[in-house]
Order: sequence, then structure tokens, then C-alpha cells
Amino acid sequence: MLIISERINGQFGSVGHAIDKRDEKYIQELALKQVEAGADYLDINTGPGRDDAPACMEWLVKTVQDVVDLPLCLDSPGPKTMEAGLKACNSSPLINSTTAEAKKMERFFPLAGEYDSDIVCLTISEKGIPNDAASRTELAMTLITTAMEHGVMPERIYIDPVILPVGAAQDQAKVVIDSIRQFRLLNDPPIRTVVGLSNVSNMAKERSLLNRSFLAMLMGAGLTAAIADPEDRELMKVLKAGEILLNESLYCDDFLMHLRE
Amino acid sequence: MLIISERINGQFGSVGHAIDKRDEKYIQELALKQVEAGADYLDINTGPGRDDAPACMEWLVKTVQDVVDLPLCLDSPGPKTMEAGLKACNSSPLINSTTAEAKKMERFFPLAGEYDSDIVCLTISEKGIPNDAASRTELAMTLITTAMEHGVMPERIYIDPVILPVGAAQDQAKVVIDSIRQFRLLNDPPIRTVVGLSNVSNMAKERSLLNRSFLAMLMGAGLTAAIADPEDRELMKVLKAGEILLNESLYCDDFLMHLRE
Repeated sequence: MLIISERINGQFGSVGHAIDKRDEKYIQELALKQVEAGADYLDINTGPGRDDAPACMEWLVKTVQDVVDLPLCLDSPGPKTMEAGLKACNSSPLINSTTAEAKKMERFFPLAGEYDSDIVCLTISEKGIPNDAASRTELAMTLITTAMEHGVMPERIYIDPVILPVGAAQDQAKVVIDSIRQFRLLNDPPIRTVVGLSNVSNMAKERSLLNRSFLAMLMGAGLTAAIADPEDRELMKVLKAGEILLNESLYCDDFLMHLRE
Repeated sequence: MLIISERINGQFGSVGHAIDKRDEKYIQELALKQVEAGADYLDINTGPGRDDAPACMEWLVKTVQDVVDLPLCLDSPGPKTMEAGLKACNSSPLINSTTAEAKKMERFFPLAGEYDSDIVCLTISEKGIPNDAASRTELAMTLITTAMEHGVMPERIYIDPVILPVGAAQDQAKVVIDSIRQFRLLNDPPIRTVVGLSNVSNMAKERSLLNRSFLAMLMGAGLTAAIADPEDRELMKVLKAGEILLNESLYCDDFLMHLRE
């Protein structure tokens, strides 16, 4: 399981403030904390409502890269902001994301091809997010075939079934579990999958409990990666236990050792 | 999700002692604690190595029934001990268990028919426990069809894929998840499933973490019931969160309320 740290996101007040002030120290300390906590990727998101989003993205990428070697996951719905980030990256990042909307795919798949990047693909069409797993899987297939037409092979794709808050759409968490399972059948080796985990508990109480319980369910269904908070220790404990249970890391009595260091 | 309390088991030193001394008070207090903690069934197991197991089973059933209304799950590999328990039950219990061995099925399915009981069926044959999900599913089919020949309908069956300790057979936890999913396809409505959860962490450190992480994975795969310890509060929190996520109980902000009372 890969953890893509969700913390470097302008939507968080203090991070937004640091972006606006170009506070390198704050961002770099935050980035280092994510590495220490066990992140495999760092999601980089300028947050909503910034007119200079491309410049913010470029600055964030450079600022983070100055202290951290982890691969980045550039998170923006805007192709210009995305391209500014891609140009600033020292090594190939993960593009987050395109949807299955024709206009989006026409912009983002060529970027993935040009910058030799992996890409997150959301199962959202012009009509929105489908209510069931079969329709999400149909969109996943559209995404995979369209990507291939642009020279982006299935091995470079992560499909994201789009998690909705359980308090608002309670029938959808199960649909997401089924979707993860069905997406895996679309390719051999199984297509990789990713979720924005904490969305499931948006506006809910007991966020960490809901997040980590859902993470275990999704791991059991074969999830590849989650955008999540590696500083949530209870979440990371479930992740480590899950990797042991799924035989993805060798069992040893002290399998939480790295979390205690 | 149904929780079958595992605590009334002579294998635990203090319970074995209480059985030998016929200490009603100890057993009854223990039974009441299980109810309070949220058990749906109470597993009743005399433990290994008692010559008078049938008499112990009868005494345990009567002692527990005197204070508790929950349905019982009679847990014994011996048909005589099972029948002593069945005769003592006020209401129809769950028989735990038969295997897919011909000799076992010939003894236990008639008991289930005679006492109008639900029955747990372990996917174990004369050759032992298969290593893969497909072979376990084959045994599940054998169990279901043989049960039907004895007049025990699929609606009265729980299939148990048999959890092994992750520290000893690390590839098997994933096989159990796949088995739960495959068993569900054998009948419409899906056949019910059950596991002896804590076996996954037998001899391991971090037992509660492994148990609850695996429970969430199995719930995501469609598990019906788990033999487990309802006094493990962290486990019960994951259970409650899981039921919310799977839309099995109505979302409310305070969904842990019953655990705090």
C-alpha cells in the first residue's frame, strides 16, 4: 500500500497562509514531517481560489524538492497549473487527475505522455459520478482505452472510484469497495487504484476511526494507494497490520517497529 | 455483523476452573458481561480434555440460560457433547460445527435437522484445510448439498473458511478474504459466513490490532458473523464504523453511543 500524503494542500488554513507568504520554512518542515511519518508520495495542491495557481504550484514543487526526495503527486484540476508543476519537477511525478470527461482527457493524457508521468483517473463523466460500481467500471474502461490512444499505457494509470462522505451518501462506500474489486479485473496485471480516503469521513465525527476502518476494507479489496494523512498513527498502524495480513510485508512480531522509531 | 462471544470457553484458565468447580456465579457474571458488551450470540465451549464434556456442556447451557436470553452457539467437535447441549437449550441454538468430513456430516447434519438448528460448517475435508479459496469453495458446496440431503436448507448454514495464524501461514489471510467473497456466490440470497476471528493473531503480538484490521477487511468482503471478544472495545468500534460504512446501520454522528453507555 502506498500512502500519498494529503497534508501539503492550500485548503488547510496554515498551508494556504504559507503559500500566500511564500513561507519556505513552514512548507519544508511540513514536507519533512510527512516523510518521517511514512509517506510514499507527497500530494501537492495549491488549494482553491488562487489566481496565481500556476506560480504557486511551481513554487511549492521547488520548495518541497529542495528538502525531500519523495516522488510528488501534483494535484490540480487546471491543466496550466498542472503543467507549471510538471515543468518544475526534477523527477517524474504522478498527475492527479483527469476525469473521464472528453475535454479533461484531451488535456491531461497528452501531458502524461509528454512528461512520462503516471496519472490518476477519476470515474467522473460529463454526467457526474455514477451511483453504481458497474457504471464506474465502464468509465474506468473509457479512461484506460482513451489513455492508450494517447500512448499512456495501463501500467501508468491509477483509477480512482471517488469516495463520497458516508454521512451524505451512505450507500456509496460499499459501491467504492466493489468498484476497486471490479477495476482490478480490467487489466492483467490488475490496474492500480487510488482513493482520497478522508473524504469518506468529511463532516463526520470519529473521522480517524471511519478512515482507518474503510482503509482496511479497501485494502482487503485490493487497493493500491490512498491519499491520506500519514501523521494519523492509528491509520498507519492499521496500514502496517493490513500489509502483514495481505502478505505484502514479511511477518515479524514487531511489525509496528518503524512507527515507534 | 453478528458477534458471537468467544469468552465462555473452558480453554481459558479461569473459565475451565469455574466449569470444574461448577461455579455458577463466575459463569453467569461472565455471560452478563458479554451481553452488556454487545454480543449477539454466546459461544459455549467446555474446552479440551474433559472426560465429562457432555455433563459440562449441559451444566454450562443451563447456567448461562438462567441469566441470559441471547441465543447460544454450542461449540464442540463431539456429537455427544453437542447433543447434551442441544437437549438443554430452551431455544434453537447454533451448532458449531461440522466439517466436510463424511463421518462428521453424517452425525451433525441430522442433529441440526432434529433440533431445527442453524449450523456452522468448516471447510475441512479428510485431507485437512485446503490452501486456496477455490478448494475451500468446493468444500463449501459439498457441505451445502450434503446438508440439503439431510433437510437442512442453505438458509440455516454458516460457512467458515477457517482462519489460520498469520504468523504461521501468512498467505492464508488473503485466501480467507477471497473465500468469504466466493462463498457468497454459492446461493441466492448469499450463503452466510462466519470466522473464528482471533485465530488470525494466535501467538502474535498486537493481537487486537490484527483482529480488528482483519475484521474490517472481512466485513468489506461480506462476512456475516465473527466469533470474537465483544469486550475488546477497539474491535467493537471498528465493527460499528464498518456497519456505518456498509450501510448496515443508519448513519448518525454519534454512532459509537451504545459503546459508551
